[in-house]
Amino acid sequence: MVASQNLCFCVCLRSGVHRLRNPFTRSRRWWEVGEEREEEEEEEGANMPNEVVAMEEENAAVEVEVEVEGEASEQVVTPWTVESKDGGINYEKLIVDFGCSRMDADMVARVERLTGRPAHPFLRRSVFFAHREFDKILDSFEKGEKFYLYTGRGPSSESLHLGHLVPFMFTKYLQDAFKVPLVIQLTDDEKFLWKNLELDEARRLARENAKDIIACGFDISRTFIFSDFDYVGGEFYRNMVRISKCVTLNQVRGIFGFVGEDHIGKVMFPPVQAAPSFPTSFPHMFGDAKQSKDIRCLIPCAIDQDPYFRMTRDAAPRLGYNKPALIESTFFPALQGDSGKMSASDPYSAIYVTDTAKQIKDKVNKSFSGGRDTAEEQRKYGANVEVDVPIKYLGFFLDDDEELKRITEAYRTGQMLTGEVKKVLIDILVTMVERHRRARAAVTEEMVDVFMTARPLPHMFG
Amino acid sequence: MVASQNLCFCVCLRSGVHRLRNPFTRSRRWWEVGEEREEEEEEEGANMPNEVVAMEEENAAVEVEVEVEGEASEQVVTPWTVESKDGGINYEKLIVDFGCSRMDADMVARVERLTGRPAHPFLRRSVFFAHREFDKILDSFEKGEKFYLYTGRGPSSESLHLGHLVPFMFTKYLQDAFKVPLVIQLTDDEKFLWKNLELDEARRLARENAKDIIACGFDISRTFIFSDFDYVGGEFYRNMVRISKCVTLNQVRGIFGFVGEDHIGKVMFPPVQAAPSFPTSFPHMFGDAKQSKDIRCLIPCAIDQDPYFRMTRDAAPRLGYNKPALIESTFFPALQGDSGKMSASDPYSAIYVTDTAKQIKDKVNKSFSGGRDTAEEQRKYGANVEVDVPIKYLGFFLDDDEELKRITEAYRTGQMLTGEVKKVLIDILVTMVERHRRARAAVTEEMVDVFMTARPLPHMFG
Repeated sequence: MVASQNLCFCVCLRSGVHRLRNPFTRSRRWWEVGEEREEEEEEEGANMPNEVVAMEEENAAVEVEVEVEGEASEQVVTPWTVESKDGGINYEKLIVDFGCSRMDADMVARVERLTGRPAHPFLRRSVFFAHREFDKILDSFEKGEKFYLYTGRGPSSESLHLGHLVPFMFTKYLQDAFKVPLVIQLTDDEKFLWKNLELDEARRLARENAKDIIACGFDISRTFIFSDFDYVGGEFYRNMVRISKCVTLNQVRGIFGFVGEDHIGKVMFPPVQAAPSFPTSFPHMFGDAKQSKDIRCLIPCAIDQDPYFRMTRDAAPRLGYNKPALIESTFFPALQGDSGKMSASDPYSAIYVTDTAKQIKDKVNKSFSGGRDTAEEQRKYGANVEVDVPIKYLGFFLDDDEELKRITEAYRTGQMLTGEVKKVLIDILVTMVERHRRARAAVTEEMVDVFMTARPLPHMFG
Repeated sequence: MVASQNLCFCVCLRSGVHRLRNPFTRSRRWWEVGEEREEEEEEEGANMPNEVVAMEEENAAVEVEVEVEGEASEQVVTPWTVESKDGGINYEKLIVDFGCSRMDADMVARVERLTGRPAHPFLRRSVFFAHREFDKILDSFEKGEKFYLYTGRGPSSESLHLGHLVPFMFTKYLQDAFKVPLVIQLTDDEKFLWKNLELDEARRLARENAKDIIACGFDISRTFIFSDFDYVGGEFYRNMVRISKCVTLNQVRGIFGFVGEDHIGKVMFPPVQAAPSFPTSFPHMFGDAKQSKDIRCLIPCAIDQDPYFRMTRDAAPRLGYNKPALIESTFFPALQGDSGKMSASDPYSAIYVTDTAKQIKDKVNKSFSGGRDTAEEQRKYGANVEVDVPIKYLGFFLDDDEELKRITEAYRTGQMLTGEVKKVLIDILVTMVERHRRARAAVTEEMVDVFMTARPLPHMFG
């Protein structure tokens, strides 16, 4: 059975998929320090003049950067680069380096209690493995206070792959479980700035991708989808400028690795991705600042987007806003396994929502296997399920915990053959992709217009 | 007789008045080189990929910056700093350093011929002393092609002084003489970013300043006034992002002297001031890109704004736009003369449009004089009219060339006393300020709303 019971699957943002080669990898340890300072001194920070705070952080940045320079290159995770020496990402180390928190079983149980429904497999199985202040979101939800969801996507390709779906599948679950409004940012400006893409082409891709997002089954009465090139302005632009005033050039160099040869569009962009974290950026939904300022924001995203929101969380108290909370996922594996990269230039690295059943079958059959070379050996020794891609994919898309456990165990002990496991996965994926294709075909231009219109959403809460 | 015959006087932008202390003065000679390259290789540049062009310029920048480091500190003119060793600005040197052209008598005569009216005193007397491609504007005007005017103001104060009026008085003359549309940018975002000012206060000042601008008598059927915080978005934002992609961090450091401790709002801003140079930023006036792309832009401003537009002109051909032309003024002198600075904290440095007749009299009488200490000495030796502030002010505001010549000569030779010259100036200024006050009082909120509404202007040309 497929995880997305509600005919939802999503098309993603920010899933660590757009892996541009950025040669300028820097330690971002100073943020960790920044974050510690933030936790301890946040209240004082809020009352200090911006410039003093900025200077303090920069000093911290400089000191720490020097200290850890030597160990900086083991793994690099930024919005544009996900790299590690041995291929696999050490997520425990990321939690420590970034200064976020592990999503534990107690918190998952609390989500189930509060929402009255089973946790999404991505939550049960630690696909969303880290968070920042998700507990505060649950506290305020428990008290009947309001929050909203914010996620997004950089629209750089026509066709989405399964990795793109992960954050949207999860966001759809969160929206249904908590009954909250959602804003989805399509960063066409980012893609124009970073890629060799015409501006109008970036806007076109944003609208095309919006169709895939809508096909995930988001609630039209609770969801606003916007493209930056169309929506930036007014309160959103004012928040962009406010945020810009809180962040120094040294800081964005430290956080994102920008260098002097980079164009200034790159420096301009982080506040654009930060602004939707504040409810005042959406006056048509949340009213004026007085009405909306205290509504909290929860951002489901892949962990590579954390740098944007560390920056945002640092700025928030200085602007009198709540810090956005985060719930962060691991990366979706490439079909070739850990050492492979999902990339548009290698169609065999990923399964696209436009793939035919035959293509899906082909790709799964060619995917990296932990099974033995022959059926005989497999029966005798069993598979290495730790590195097996079909098993990993089943962990994402096979909803039934018992069935997943049974298959994994049978495969590990040689009771199941590689081809049999792959067959299970192929059936699930073909169903899932076929369902997505039908849902997308049903999305009309008029529906896109409505989702993408800045409009009041009177029934978005509860 | 006062220069502003049409009940116009304006309130200015960018007249070198907002002189923040920026400790980071850098040679900007590389731009000169950039400009030469631009003139010679512009066409090829337009066809080169952005990144290659950017790299070439940066290399030029580095080379030349090293060469001229030694002579860089003689005078500094940036949008935030106007400083020189001996107090006076060497405008001839500025023309050479910036790489712009001198406004000569032939060009002034050509303006009179083309417009069928006498040139404005600011043009006849070289207040607007420099230009960039103003000849191209005249060429295209002669051929019946369209152009528009763009100027602006950073709204950092409630009350404007005479220096603020200069660019607006001149812009009003240009609008009337050429019968062309005008866009006026109020950079409330800039003032929020650079000054210790609340965002809403910056927006309020923008609207208040708009009233002073409207009081200058601009043609409502040809003029669009906008605040960045309200207008940025849509095509304007798209142009901002396009421009950002053409300019590197190294370049803005070279042009504006930004350093790592500066917040990124400063880096974000130059494209905001650049965007109105392109007609596609105003689709409600000029239609879509196909209709509007070739309309030229002429920017009247003080010479300290030149860095923004050097940057803009460099980006223009890469975006398929015409470079904006410029017509650039000297700085308006402080009442204390060359060594003084007009500043809001010293009310005796400038005459404000809100000053009473008594205050004006007081200030003029205390202004720096080139006259002798006693009437007797003055009759005997005459005045030094080169440094005399009242004579300089008469050069701005006394329209009658013969009368100005007569007074200057009489004063220089001792036929007129200091008090007599000051009396002439006081009468002119009191009339001018009184007229402004009446015109401003007549500006209604509804008029401001209309001027500041993005609307079609069907009769803006001819």
